[in-house]
Amino acid sequence: MNAPILDNVLAQLRDALTANNFSSAAAIIEKLRPADQADLFTELDEDEQLALLVELPVADSADILEELDEDEAAELVESMPPEDAVRIMEEMEPDEIADLLGDLSAEHASQMLSRLEDPDEVRPLLLHPDDSAGGLMTSEFLALRRRTTASAAIRALRDWKPDRENIYYLFVVDAEQKLCGVVSLQDLVIAEPDTALTDIMDADVIAVQAGIDQEDAARVMTRYDLLALPVITDDGKLLGVITIDDVMDVLEDEASEDFQRLGGAEPLDRAYLNTNVLTITRKRIGWLLMLFLTATLTGSVMRLFQGELQAVVSLAIFIPLLIGTGGNAGSQTTATVIRALATDDIDLGDALRVWWHEARIGLLLGLGMAVIAYGRAITWESDPSLALTVAASIFGIVLWATGIGSVLPLLASKLGIDPTVVSGPVMSTLVDATGLFIYFSIARIMLGL
Amino acid sequence: MNAPILDNVLAQLRDALTANNFSSAAAIIEKLRPADQADLFTELDEDEQLALLVELPVADSADILEELDEDEAAELVESMPPEDAVRIMEEMEPDEIADLLGDLSAEHASQMLSRLEDPDEVRPLLLHPDDSAGGLMTSEFLALRRRTTASAAIRALRDWKPDRENIYYLFVVDAEQKLCGVVSLQDLVIAEPDTALTDIMDADVIAVQAGIDQEDAARVMTRYDLLALPVITDDGKLLGVITIDDVMDVLEDEASEDFQRLGGAEPLDRAYLNTNVLTITRKRIGWLLMLFLTATLTGSVMRLFQGELQAVVSLAIFIPLLIGTGGNAGSQTTATVIRALATDDIDLGDALRVWWHEARIGLLLGLGMAVIAYGRAITWESDPSLALTVAASIFGIVLWATGIGSVLPLLASKLGIDPTVVSGPVMSTLVDATGLFIYFSIARIMLGL
Repeated sequence: MNAPILDNVLAQLRDALTANNFSSAAAIIEKLRPADQADLFTELDEDEQLALLVELPVADSADILEELDEDEAAELVESMPPEDAVRIMEEMEPDEIADLLGDLSAEHASQMLSRLEDPDEVRPLLLHPDDSAGGLMTSEFLALRRRTTASAAIRALRDWKPDRENIYYLFVVDAEQKLCGVVSLQDLVIAEPDTALTDIMDADVIAVQAGIDQEDAARVMTRYDLLALPVITDDGKLLGVITIDDVMDVLEDEASEDFQRLGGAEPLDRAYLNTNVLTITRKRIGWLLMLFLTATLTGSVMRLFQGELQAVVSLAIFIPLLIGTGGNAGSQTTATVIRALATDDIDLGDALRVWWHEARIGLLLGLGMAVIAYGRAITWESDPSLALTVAASIFGIVLWATGIGSVLPLLASKLGIDPTVVSGPVMSTLVDATGLFIYFSIARIMLGL
Repeated sequence: MNAPILDNVLAQLRDALTANNFSSAAAIIEKLRPADQADLFTELDEDEQLALLVELPVADSADILEELDEDEAAELVESMPPEDAVRIMEEMEPDEIADLLGDLSAEHASQMLSRLEDPDEVRPLLLHPDDSAGGLMTSEFLALRRRTTASAAIRALRDWKPDRENIYYLFVVDAEQKLCGVVSLQDLVIAEPDTALTDIMDADVIAVQAGIDQEDAARVMTRYDLLALPVITDDGKLLGVITIDDVMDVLEDEASEDFQRLGGAEPLDRAYLNTNVLTITRKRIGWLLMLFLTATLTGSVMRLFQGELQAVVSLAIFIPLLIGTGGNAGSQTTATVIRALATDDIDLGDALRVWWHEARIGLLLGLGMAVIAYGRAITWESDPSLALTVAASIFGIVLWATGIGSVLPLLASKLGIDPTVVSGPVMSTLVDATGLFIYFSIARIMLGL
């Protein structure tokens, strides 16, 4: 929905709300799709939001809560009369209820859970960490037995009436609830009515255990083009199903987090403009401080060479140029390597190949930049030995930065640290200090200081 | 598939190939899923790859070609006898054939197209740019009329036998092929057999025109949780359908491109280790050079203040620290703003709000960093006026960098430039030069130079 339309609808909605005309407000909301409803909703004040959630038909309120950012939804639920909150939650999908409960205070969560009509549908989902496959799955799925016929399966589907709108697979389990096959809706539809599921199912099911990381589950689904991924226990019992819509959100959030970390900021949990200035400052200052402290290394290196600097003040002129180029060459490398790791193009076993790849690239880039830097230095300072110093330094710095840039993400990954955290700005700062050391050492030799 | 298993299967496959035992090679390949087949395949030499593609059952060869990186697939097809290439392409999905033809030389492409059994299925797809919705869609879909009954639709589905494995929606069109509704497979299955499609279809279909950017189409699908998105002409005729598996690849590629651009490198078209050193160097050197040239600005600023530098050489010691902190504060901001733009959290109309948000954050961050910097400077140089200069400078630089960092991505976006291209390293370089100017200007006043 584009901005002018949104503003127009928003004005209509506000009119309805000030007139306390909730049926007209409901009519305006129901015309929109959930994602648009949520957009519209976040434009309202908190009082308006609460009034609307309580007064709208529960199905609409449930849709809105599901689409909102998790923190916003939790805040609203905590400010709502408990009986209204429960009434709305009853309409939500079990995995969404579990997520919401996880964001409430412990006291609120247990109160809500005890008031739910069927808490046992939700309780098992609460056992799994939020960022695991178990935390992402829903307990709403249809599991049938091998001998069930296609027509019986279709009847079961008809009787089931899930909250979830789109179901694409049925699962086949044995007497112990162990997963033994999957049937796509398409195969079910085209099968003869009296075919047994065992004859149309795919017995080679891809499934994951509940404890694995949600991002790994998402990668399995994209790699094998799956719309639903069954989650099983250690001994193969079917626990739940992860659906494609939840996975797309995981992938998008993951890309956002990586991106923000590469920029040297802790990822935000909620929409940017809804995150207040103090929270963002807190998320950033830690990094800035840490980088500042490591950057004092560069100051120490310079103090070490203060004599040289005093003797040839022109040396200082090239400092930003040299460390800037080193930082850029390094961050080009880390960005490529981190992304190749994330998309499984490379793994830790490829470390040596990656380093050798980057070493040759660094050699070429370093040579190219050295020639340019020599030209620039000679026209600025017209001292051939200084120009040669700058050219040799930039060659060394670029070669060193690409090397560090290729090794650092792999090392982090090996140590179980998110490579985006230690790369980016951290690497630039590291390259700054070592780059200066290279520069002044070369200067000391070449200029005979 | 993990590395040891892959190596083991690879050894078996190589044995079968050296023995020219292609039926055993086929048996090994057929046990794997397409994504794993492609992984295995890329480990082979080109001769082995060509032999295998020609000798395997065509359906397997088609699966492998579809899963490979586009450039690799095109190279293989160009080195293959044309009759074998056509035989394999006949088994591929129309949108995949169109993509492949687009990557072949013009001569090869027209030769292949003329040899295809049903070139008219592919030809219309070639008319659309590769990165548009039209370039992403397939022409394989099932379109029925309003009065068709559910049971007749199921019969039509049964007779259709698409190459594509997973179909989730049927489309309803009028006599002029104009799209008027969509029926999910789930609703079709649950419906009474003699219900007309018009009674179970959703008439409020989300569709896009063929010319829009593929990333915009992908965003529509993720926003509204769609598994298939119809593509229509200007006057509403159904042209094709974009499916979720293609969209996930688009989103993943897009995230990779953004990430690499933020690191200051042109995105690679193919897997990292398969891209040769010269190509990667070429993609990076342009950026490094451009950044080097803008970085010479910092040199010019320093030459401008050479007198001050000569008078107080200790000023130089803080240069890397100050410009480093400025660059980091700026890249934290750009990363957050770019990502918020990409996920539609903010749009261009929010520019002022974003700037005001960042201005306050910059104020807080700048104050915090100034206090720390004062402490560090006073212990290093024990000159209060120099320490005060450093503290005041870091405050100014951080405030300035967050401001620039918030405005630059929005400005780029406004001008139709990808914000990741002008941000990241470009911004750091810009902040370097202006940061030095702020520093030396403050020094001139505070130290009375």
